[in-house]
Amino acid sequence: MKIGIIGAGAIGLLCAYQLEEKYDVTLYVRSKNQYEQIKQSGIYYKVKEEKKARTINVRYFEEWNGLEELTIVTVKQYQLAPIYEKMEAFGTQIKAMCFLQNGMSHIEKIKNMEVANVLIGIVEHGAMKEDAHTVIHTGIGATKLACVKGEMEEILVSLTTMTNEVFPFIKEYDYKTMMQKKLVVNSIVNGLTSILQVQNGQLLENGHYAQLANMFMNEVLEILTITEVDKKMYRDYCLDVIRNTALNKSSMLKDIEAGRPTEIDAILGYILEEAKKKQKNAPIASTIYYMIKGKEREGEEFYR
Amino acid sequence: MKIGIIGAGAIGLLCAYQLEEKYDVTLYVRSKNQYEQIKQSGIYYKVKEEKKARTINVRYFEEWNGLEELTIVTVKQYQLAPIYEKMEAFGTQIKAMCFLQNGMSHIEKIKNMEVANVLIGIVEHGAMKEDAHTVIHTGIGATKLACVKGEMEEILVSLTTMTNEVFPFIKEYDYKTMMQKKLVVNSIVNGLTSILQVQNGQLLENGHYAQLANMFMNEVLEILTITEVDKKMYRDYCLDVIRNTALNKSSMLKDIEAGRPTEIDAILGYILEEAKKKQKNAPIASTIYYMIKGKEREGEEFYR
Repeated sequence: MKIGIIGAGAIGLLCAYQLEEKYDVTLYVRSKNQYEQIKQSGIYYKVKEEKKARTINVRYFEEWNGLEELTIVTVKQYQLAPIYEKMEAFGTQIKAMCFLQNGMSHIEKIKNMEVANVLIGIVEHGAMKEDAHTVIHTGIGATKLACVKGEMEEILVSLTTMTNEVFPFIKEYDYKTMMQKKLVVNSIVNGLTSILQVQNGQLLENGHYAQLANMFMNEVLEILTITEVDKKMYRDYCLDVIRNTALNKSSMLKDIEAGRPTEIDAILGYILEEAKKKQKNAPIASTIYYMIKGKEREGEEFYR
Repeated sequence: MKIGIIGAGAIGLLCAYQLEEKYDVTLYVRSKNQYEQIKQSGIYYKVKEEKKARTINVRYFEEWNGLEELTIVTVKQYQLAPIYEKMEAFGTQIKAMCFLQNGMSHIEKIKNMEVANVLIGIVEHGAMKEDAHTVIHTGIGATKLACVKGEMEEILVSLTTMTNEVFPFIKEYDYKTMMQKKLVVNSIVNGLTSILQVQNGQLLENGHYAQLANMFMNEVLEILTITEVDKKMYRDYCLDVIRNTALNKSSMLKDIEAGRPTEIDAILGYILEEAKKKQKNAPIASTIYYMIKGKEREGEEFYR
């Protein structure tokens, strides 16, 4: 099976390296520097003490036409616009796509486009891009996939039966719950740690932060109209993620520290829109949202 | 007139230096180091390029008995307990007191004590303690005073007609409004700047922070049941303070940075209690409160 991967950040490099073991992967990039480095020496993959390399087909994003059996999109949510443009241009010619973004606002948009076969997924790996073509696999997790539309069974079977134990795929049946669980975690963990500038685990260890996280989670679950029965499942999932990533810095904290844009609009921005639609109050979400938007603006000023 | 001053932080040193020009001041301190330095070389006062010194009577706090015509209390709100104890011990023997703390929770407490004559005040000077007996007068403002109980007219006339143009006193008639205005400012400015780690002026310059400050102010004014008519006065006062102190770091931000305890309980803690009493929601105040309490705990851990 031919697989295209759009985006060569940490997750893009990790997917490309791991999937190349079984599939014929083409990585689509934008930067000339990345193109040349990957062309010349492939992708370096580091885990613990090991460092391995693998050659990968690399092409410029402009050349992508959706003809691979599956195209996996790993760019950040706020970088999707040029991909939407191409999807509109190629329409039904595109075979199948898989989106690995945070947030949920892209799902409705994609459902309404012509492309017939769409998977959506969440990545529970820890990965860090060391340089243009080197990825460090800092935490081994899983990629959860669910079908949003179309005939995806064959691809799902292929991916989930891949016998790569450091890079497993898990099939989920209800994409909405899957994405909402991730959205709640991202709201709480990314939202709070990036303002408080603490590692994830502090949200449980520091009693005051734990109280705040709990208040915030209640607000978010209320806005998403999660049933009383399901709330426990969301809470437990969130606590699990915090415990499993206790020593990590969240991606949003790293973005803030580096003065980069964050995914706040895809995460808390989505929560605020839901609240508006449902005429619910979102005071804590708004507070955190404006704090992070303000921090982003400080970052811009810094790099002006 | 004899004046006692309890507490030799920035405000205590500033008051002692300035009031010694016209009054017979005794400064009550706790630390042996401060006692000895002030005894030996008096108080150093710095403003712009100038540095002046003045000798002051200095005594240990244990010796205070309330017999000066006026005792000014300049310690932080969370340091009031030993002063309450002495007030209870000396009762009606104490002539008159003036409290310069942030927050409002001490006012009810003091009103219910035996001491007959009580002023309350807010300090709008900028002052920084450079070392044990040196204060830098970083911003010239005023000290606003209002009577809480008793016969204070003579003392108020004496203080407000002092002709010291860098250290004026202004008489206010409604102590509750005066303290509430300060409380609102402290909630917004100290609360937000200490979490966002920005200078005061950023709360207006950064549009996202301005939006947050506005939401937060609305919540606080609602909790304090400020009338629609008066809300504008509170808002304008808050904006004035932010503009006039745009380049300053708030005291709470400095406390957080230094890992010291903050006055958060006297400020947002009071707001939260009011909300509870009145059965009003305080989601933004709670969010900021727990963030700052958590930061204080981080500070403790740091110094453990």
